[in-house]
Amino acid sequence: MAESERKLSNGATRIDFATDPSRYRHWKLSVDGDVATLLMDVDEKGGLFEGYELKLNSYDLGVDIELADALERLRFEYPQVRVILLRSGKPRVFCAGANIRMLAGATHAHKVNFCKFTNETRNAIEDASASSGQHTICVVNGSCAGGGYELALAADHIILVDDGSSSVSLPELPLLAVLPGTGGLTRVTDKRKVRRDLADVFCTTEEGVKGRRAVEWRLVDEVVSNTKLDEAVAARAREFAGRSDRPKDAKGIALTPLERRIGPDSRDYKFLSVEIARADRTATITLRGPDAPPPASVEAMVAQGADFWPLELARELDDAILDLRLNELDVATIVFKSEGNPEAVLAYDAFLEANKGHWLAREIRHKWKRVLKRVDLTSRSLVTLVEPGSCFAGTLAELVLAADRSYMLIGQMNGDNRPPAALALAPANFGAYPMSNGLSRLASRFLAEPYAVEQLRGKIGTTIDAEEGEELGLVTFALDDVDWEDEIRVFLEERASFSPDGLTGMEANLRFGGPETMESKIFARLTAWQNWIFQRPNAIGEEGALRLYGTGRKPAFDTKRV
Amino acid sequence: MAESERKLSNGATRIDFATDPSRYRHWKLSVDGDVATLLMDVDEKGGLFEGYELKLNSYDLGVDIELADALERLRFEYPQVRVILLRSGKPRVFCAGANIRMLAGATHAHKVNFCKFTNETRNAIEDASASSGQHTICVVNGSCAGGGYELALAADHIILVDDGSSSVSLPELPLLAVLPGTGGLTRVTDKRKVRRDLADVFCTTEEGVKGRRAVEWRLVDEVVSNTKLDEAVAARAREFAGRSDRPKDAKGIALTPLERRIGPDSRDYKFLSVEIARADRTATITLRGPDAPPPASVEAMVAQGADFWPLELARELDDAILDLRLNELDVATIVFKSEGNPEAVLAYDAFLEANKGHWLAREIRHKWKRVLKRVDLTSRSLVTLVEPGSCFAGTLAELVLAADRSYMLIGQMNGDNRPPAALALAPANFGAYPMSNGLSRLASRFLAEPYAVEQLRGKIGTTIDAEEGEELGLVTFALDDVDWEDEIRVFLEERASFSPDGLTGMEANLRFGGPETMESKIFARLTAWQNWIFQRPNAIGEEGALRLYGTGRKPAFDTKRV
Repeated sequence: MAESERKLSNGATRIDFATDPSRYRHWKLSVDGDVATLLMDVDEKGGLFEGYELKLNSYDLGVDIELADALERLRFEYPQVRVILLRSGKPRVFCAGANIRMLAGATHAHKVNFCKFTNETRNAIEDASASSGQHTICVVNGSCAGGGYELALAADHIILVDDGSSSVSLPELPLLAVLPGTGGLTRVTDKRKVRRDLADVFCTTEEGVKGRRAVEWRLVDEVVSNTKLDEAVAARAREFAGRSDRPKDAKGIALTPLERRIGPDSRDYKFLSVEIARADRTATITLRGPDAPPPASVEAMVAQGADFWPLELARELDDAILDLRLNELDVATIVFKSEGNPEAVLAYDAFLEANKGHWLAREIRHKWKRVLKRVDLTSRSLVTLVEPGSCFAGTLAELVLAADRSYMLIGQMNGDNRPPAALALAPANFGAYPMSNGLSRLASRFLAEPYAVEQLRGKIGTTIDAEEGEELGLVTFALDDVDWEDEIRVFLEERASFSPDGLTGMEANLRFGGPETMESKIFARLTAWQNWIFQRPNAIGEEGALRLYGTGRKPAFDTKRV
Repeated sequence: MAESERKLSNGATRIDFATDPSRYRHWKLSVDGDVATLLMDVDEKGGLFEGYELKLNSYDLGVDIELADALERLRFEYPQVRVILLRSGKPRVFCAGANIRMLAGATHAHKVNFCKFTNETRNAIEDASASSGQHTICVVNGSCAGGGYELALAADHIILVDDGSSSVSLPELPLLAVLPGTGGLTRVTDKRKVRRDLADVFCTTEEGVKGRRAVEWRLVDEVVSNTKLDEAVAARAREFAGRSDRPKDAKGIALTPLERRIGPDSRDYKFLSVEIARADRTATITLRGPDAPPPASVEAMVAQGADFWPLELARELDDAILDLRLNELDVATIVFKSEGNPEAVLAYDAFLEANKGHWLAREIRHKWKRVLKRVDLTSRSLVTLVEPGSCFAGTLAELVLAADRSYMLIGQMNGDNRPPAALALAPANFGAYPMSNGLSRLASRFLAEPYAVEQLRGKIGTTIDAEEGEELGLVTFALDDVDWEDEIRVFLEERASFSPDGLTGMEANLRFGGPETMESKIFARLTAWQNWIFQRPNAIGEEGALRLYGTGRKPAFDTKRV
């Protein structure tokens, strides 16, 4: 199956990230009191692309889209859920990992973006635990291999059934000549803190590890016999539920389907539009401010539910970014613009800040945090244009700080009487939305001058014009209307002329100065090595291990070490 | 110039890392009181390989081998030197960076290993400043581009001449579609803490930045007019010299040439031998313990000079590792063995520990630190065999901890009456030799159990046998003589059967658990992305930017972003 032959199943022309439980083919979500169960029961015939079957609970992007959706719903629709049990619906197999025939036939770009999305989903499991009191217990019954074990690693607690055959393994290297690249190696060393030499043995042992040794090597948290499994799971669920601060009696909100109009070169959502200029290789994402003041109370916010402006917009931005990542590979640069009243945006930020102890307000801020991280991790050049009539204030100002560079117009355009461009900061800019490196975007920006961040607190809520924005270092360039169009045109043309790979590498480095976290290590160290290996003939060449898997033929390696 | 056509110049058959100032073709080292000057004056005709000229002070591995040598000599031969001035011996150009025709024609393995070595040399400049009071001031007169600026970035202080034309730049991305991969991007963000959007502008601007803007953007520390340059340089040199704790009246020791016998499949040094088993794709490095007790005094150590066992062995190990890295690409696994008396090794460690305030003892420990880091960063599987008659004690025990895994024999071999294998720890194992991640190898090993490291302090100086070594987690497997040969043969065969690239990626991840430093970020995030780009057609394909540079033809890029 060569790169060009891949076709989406069922005549689909684009990968759609929108789904809901009524359409799941691979997961069963059930809730019993404060415990939810996510049962992985992959439909073999339900592959996203033609040409492979999802045997043995192996997965492709389509399976993970459902998982990501289920995790979001658990946070918003089920405030009472404190524990998520991750289990397999198949006998004798937990999960065989990413589908190998899918990987073998996938384009490099799809492999990389698939891994990135699954990484983000694994991180979302950990974020639900760290930020929202939804703890995950993974119950491994049967074989749990490769990406299957990487999924288990995202849980707070792994229970392995002690039946003489259930095992965990990372057989990617010996079987496929690639890495456990969806966080596997990093979570083994940095989360589970497996001793490095034992990790070496584990990652080179096809059949994996079972029983007591899996506990001794820190690969799982406990082993339990089949007869005692239900009891042990219930006990752990009670224990983790007891640590949660989820509300007892809150009513969830429904994540209703996003309203979208999808054109050949456009996407229109309620508060967001995407325009793709194919000749220029740009996609312009315009975010619109709220059309009404914030609700009068948290009860009114709950009543608005998915229509509440900050939540609606976050979901729309998430969908738009994923759509561009997977379906629009030729887009070189994403241009962020906004339209609206900065004061109105700040009013919503103030509302969320004032009510940040409420479970839904908290969820919405964490949703924005995750969406903004998704922006940071998007391998396209990002530029934000702060123009008259825009509303880059508070939460939306994060898109100015997330951009590789930004331009702000001084004064007004000839013949345009919209108010001059203005920026405004809110308390949320100072810590509510940490990047993968653990720092706020402001702290990442002013690594050399931490005091500058403190000084900017004094600007909270004030209107910052272009010249002040440049002076404060919040935007890259303030330009007047004489230079504006030419400068931006030249920038966009130049960007489109550069090597896409060079830009991807450069941006991946420049965006994340300062400290590293497990999360940033996964996206940097591990992912970059995996991407390299995904280009190497020893994995993907005609005689490479990934290509030959399942054919019975042995791969032929170039034995030179680099 | 395709990969296969590359030939070393002057009929050489291997790359040699041994040199001395009398043989330098590219650098002039001079010393005046406490200030040394390293003048870069690259001989165009002195390329390491045939097929390119080193114009405009551009460099290849041969140029960097001389720089690395000069830096070592400054530390050992010139204890009085407190400041190193890094200058160009050419008019109007500081350094044009890595030679592009060399890069375009180099194999992937050579490019990667070349970048790794230059990275290690840049780190050595910073280590001299941080650890040994030798501070570097870089004086940029003329254009300082790409790798030239990356070299400057390693200095403590960069002075840029303000003459309207001298500039610093990182034009790799726009010109060559590759990254400033020798620490450039990381030092810009993490050392100089340039704001990320300004860094984006800088790294996409071919012509770079000059004058005041270079200071404002934190790219250099000061700009000085030509007329005031000498005065400014002298003032800065005095200032940095004043911060140094180098001794005033010490006499240096000569780093005399290593005695080596180089056979087709062997290298023999005084205290170290390398045996290459080509069929097995292994290289066995055997280190030998001292043949005499430590000297009676620091004066006697100085008198021994380069013959002092710890220094001699460190230099030999360094040379052997570099030789394997660059000249023996087919070696899959490096096997470390040792021969000697552990007590004798511990006696030298105790001597160095007792005299660690003495400049030479300090230099020797830092040399070991750098050599051990070189081992960590070597992209080969590393295994240490702790056998009867071995001396993996103290400093040498670091090679057990540096290995991907280790095996230790229980008891003696049939018919062999050498003493049973023994390990021993010394205070040096608890912090004298940090890895790139800033942790000792013991702390990296026991990330899950920091208290285990503290408990091991109680074992300092005691003899640890195989079973205890396994129990304590210091070795991976303790085996008796019945299993020994088979287990190790199977391991080595298995290792040689795996994908070299997969192993490289896996080891790069498993070896560095825990925190990241600027140094580890360079070797992980930046290097991994650069290696990926070095495999991408947009850089190295027939129509790639690196391949076409200088031909006048424009590269044709695959515009898809991954």
